[in-house]
Amino acid sequence: PQEPPKPGTEVSFVRKLRSRQFWRAILAELLGTLVLVSTMLGASVPGPGEAPGGPLYPALAIAAVIVSLGHCFGEISGAQVNPAVTLSLLATKKIDLVRALVYVGAQCLGAFLATGALYLALPRKSTAEVFANRVPVDGNAAQALGMEVLCTFSMVFTIFSVEEQRRRESTEPGNLGIGLAHTAGVMIAARFSGAGMNPARALGPAIITGFWENHWVYWIGPVTGGVLAGVSHEFFFAHSASRQKLVA
Amino acid sequence: PQEPPKPGTEVSFVRKLRSRQFWRAILAELLGTLVLVSTMLGASVPGPGEAPGGPLYPALAIAAVIVSLGHCFGEISGAQVNPAVTLSLLATKKIDLVRALVYVGAQCLGAFLATGALYLALPRKSTAEVFANRVPVDGNAAQALGMEVLCTFSMVFTIFSVEEQRRRESTEPGNLGIGLAHTAGVMIAARFSGAGMNPARALGPAIITGFWENHWVYWIGPVTGGVLAGVSHEFFFAHSASRQKLVA
Amino acid sequence: PQEPPKPGTEVSFVRKLRSRQFWRAILAELLGTLVLVSTMLGASVPGPGEAPGGPLYPALAIAAVIVSLGHCFGEISGAQVNPAVTLSLLATKKIDLVRALVYVGAQCLGAFLATGALYLALPRKSTAEVFANRVPVDGNAAQALGMEVLCTFSMVFTIFSVEEQRRRESTEPGNLGIGLAHTAGVMIAARFSGAGMNPARALGPAIITGFWENHWVYWIGPVTGGVLAGVSHEFFFAHSASRQKLVA
Amino acid sequence: PQEPPKPGTEVSFVRKLRSRQFWRAILAELLGTLVLVSTMLGASVPGPGEAPGGPLYPALAIAAVIVSLGHCFGEISGAQVNPAVTLSLLATKKIDLVRALVYVGAQCLGAFLATGALYLALPRKSTAEVFANRVPVDGNAAQALGMEVLCTFSMVFTIFSVEEQRRRESTEPGNLGIGLAHTAGVMIAARFSGAGMNPARALGPAIITGFWENHWVYWIGPVTGGVLAGVSHEFFFAHSASRQKLVA
Repeated sequence: PQEPPKPGTEVSFVRKLRSRQFWRAILAELLGTLVLVSTMLGASVPGPGEAPGGPLYPALAIAAVIVSLGHCFGEISGAQVNPAVTLSLLATKKIDLVRALVYVGAQCLGAFLATGALYLALPRKSTAEVFANRVPVDGNAAQALGMEVLCTFSMVFTIFSVEEQRRRESTEPGNLGIGLAHTAGVMIAARFSGAGMNPARALGPAIITGFWENHWVYWIGPVTGGVLAGVSHEFFFAHSASRQKLVA
Repeated sequence: PQEPPKPGTEVSFVRKLRSRQFWRAILAELLGTLVLVSTMLGASVPGPGEAPGGPLYPALAIAAVIVSLGHCFGEISGAQVNPAVTLSLLATKKIDLVRALVYVGAQCLGAFLATGALYLALPRKSTAEVFANRVPVDGNAAQALGMEVLCTFSMVFTIFSVEEQRRRESTEPGNLGIGLAHTAGVMIAARFSGAGMNPARALGPAIITGFWENHWVYWIGPVTGGVLAGVSHEFFFAHSASRQKLVA
Repeated sequence: PQEPPKPGTEVSFVRKLRSRQFWRAILAELLGTLVLVSTMLGASVPGPGEAPGGPLYPALAIAAVIVSLGHCFGEISGAQVNPAVTLSLLATKKIDLVRALVYVGAQCLGAFLATGALYLALPRKSTAEVFANRVPVDGNAAQALGMEVLCTFSMVFTIFSVEEQRRRESTEPGNLGIGLAHTAGVMIAARFSGAGMNPARALGPAIITGFWENHWVYWIGPVTGGVLAGVSHEFFFAHSASRQKLVA
Repeated sequence: PQEPPKPGTEVSFVRKLRSRQFWRAILAELLGTLVLVSTMLGASVPGPGEAPGGPLYPALAIAAVIVSLGHCFGEISGAQVNPAVTLSLLATKKIDLVRALVYVGAQCLGAFLATGALYLALPRKSTAEVFANRVPVDGNAAQALGMEVLCTFSMVFTIFSVEEQRRRESTEPGNLGIGLAHTAGVMIAARFSGAGMNPARALGPAIITGFWENHWVYWIGPVTGGVLAGVSHEFFFAHSASRQKLVA
């Protein structure tokens, strides 16, 4: 995610422009999460007669869609499309509380609409059970929670690192770095927790399919991992880390 | 796609140069679509004795070939290679009607030639049935249509976003962004509609194999999604959106 | 491939330096082709008890190794690592005859050494039959030849396009464009001809396994496709195409 | 890997800053290797009832995580996360002995912690046997050793090449080049030796699972290949190769 664009130089229109940009950013988060969740759910649908597959399709799909959304909405709302990312930006004081809450609301609505659209398009509605994030049959919630923390930590840490490089005009392609950090996260945790990493992506299918078992894991885990990553990056690893940051 | 190169500064040769560039652009669209459709059809051929596979090969192939074609023809014709893209550029007044129609014609011819070449190279001609875009057996045309709109929307929206970034000299690799937006589109809709996203790619195999069932889905869906994406980007999401655009 | 570095400005050491650079370039081609062919053969080895797979591994492996070799040897010898590429550069007068022949020799030697090394490392030597480029059982040599021409054409055309963009300092990552053009080529032709695209890669296994059936297809096809691509790019599609080029 | 950042310009705080940077770099190596090894082990876990798969997941996972770690820790410690890389930097006098030894220690500790965490998260502990690097049943240690040398050589050679390009401000994305060099290495050697390429990644699972058979192969092979690559790049292939380097 990138910080929202600064208000224009024309002083008299600033308020109005700001308001327009604010609504544009909300719609960007809604539409971005809609596309993200459509992609992840579409990638998890098995072919007719096939068993649900491993993490290959989600691992490829998440990198592709995150890079794509970075181009679409990166300069509008930061293409956060993930409550765990938004809340880690809030925890490091990069966005204010109102914006964070509105974004999370838009993300959840987008995820709900995406799940609804794909549910309508499913020939056999029973297939929708693959949409839900769930703890593996032979695992337990604590194991899944720990892995959600780990994979979201590594993903959000990369986002903060890329944002710092962007401020210093690195030529490395940051969107791809963030996309591949999601792929790496899927590889880490797919077999342990399904590698949700995104509470909105978990919420949409939970509402539509009514499967709420261990749903809290996919909120507590990613948010904890994301906030830990943001805080440790800002206050220890960043170039300009520590005192200055704590004051700013 | 990028806008066609501006005419040179030598005023006297402008007309002639323009004409030469015009024909070069048409040939670029023809050749580009030929390579695109060859790649997509080649990627869908199963090995001897194998059943047709899932969307993995098409998802990888489309990203690879779109990046490659962006390098080859991006500065000549914009490497549109897709009537849905060309018509969304027409709807946003980025190219004129004559150019759009000629490009679409060249794209359809390229797709036909590619399908013909691969048909000739097939050992068993019955395999050619995997070339066609088709609605899944247990789905219906309305579901497929909706998913074609969704996946083409997200793909064309990315193209417009990347083009805007290119005008502002972003260092993010735009070809890769567009390529991965195609991969994301395949992931969204492959199981619902085959993720055509390109009427020319659907037309070539329809002519060669004579399979026209629900063919309209692969024209109406992508064109609707593409035009919606172009219009919503230009008139709402773009940096320089709205009034100015409507006049220009 | 990039053109070899120009001689330094110190006039007196130019000859000597040139000679040193020449030998470094030859070793780069040898080592580069060794790594390329090791990667492609390693990617084609099935696991114990598995049947040889489809084009997935080669399609990923070729992109990865081509990007990697572009970083390693792109500024030393152009990282051509492929007689079809070298001969298309010769046909467009971008390198001279002596250099071309020496490079092709180094590439063939590198391919032979790579095949030998992997053959020694194979637990069961019968597995080595998967190393060879071969026409599918139910296809014929003419079909395979046509597909080799098509896929090498699209790949070499991308190389020429990327080289032209590099001269104009594009920020798109050219190595990745060339790597993904190889992936697209594999997707086009893998099921029809094995998508050799590289005579050296075909020669190494032919020598080690003694399998020479239809070997000519993997020389005539790629070289024809590559030369067609180079010539059509230079004399028609390039920014600075035609008269000037024909004289230069 | 990139060289560690130079000390600041404020002379009086240099010592202290240096010390702070040193500890930050050590933690970066520890955390980076923890994420790397988590990703590689997570990618190797089969689904319930599935047999362990081929090199596809590791090949994708390594590229994704290396790109991601390059963004996270490239400017802090060079994101070496691999004793074979650290020792090849030592052999070419790019880091001093103390730093090299401390980094290797941090890497081994990170790998141990990652393996421990994933072991705790595994529902059935017997699955942990897939974590270990092992010589294939029908192969022998010498064959595996040779392949480890080859694949680590090609990977480390790419790292040195990318570092040289970075010093000359190339616009090619170096993180991706290094990531894909790892993918190519996995493709070369996965079927022969498991393509360890990283002694720390081999050590962690060896400690946790107690599987030490042929463990030396995964230290001697990668370190030999890495040092050979570093030395041959610095003293023969680099732009500024030879005499100057030997003195510096």
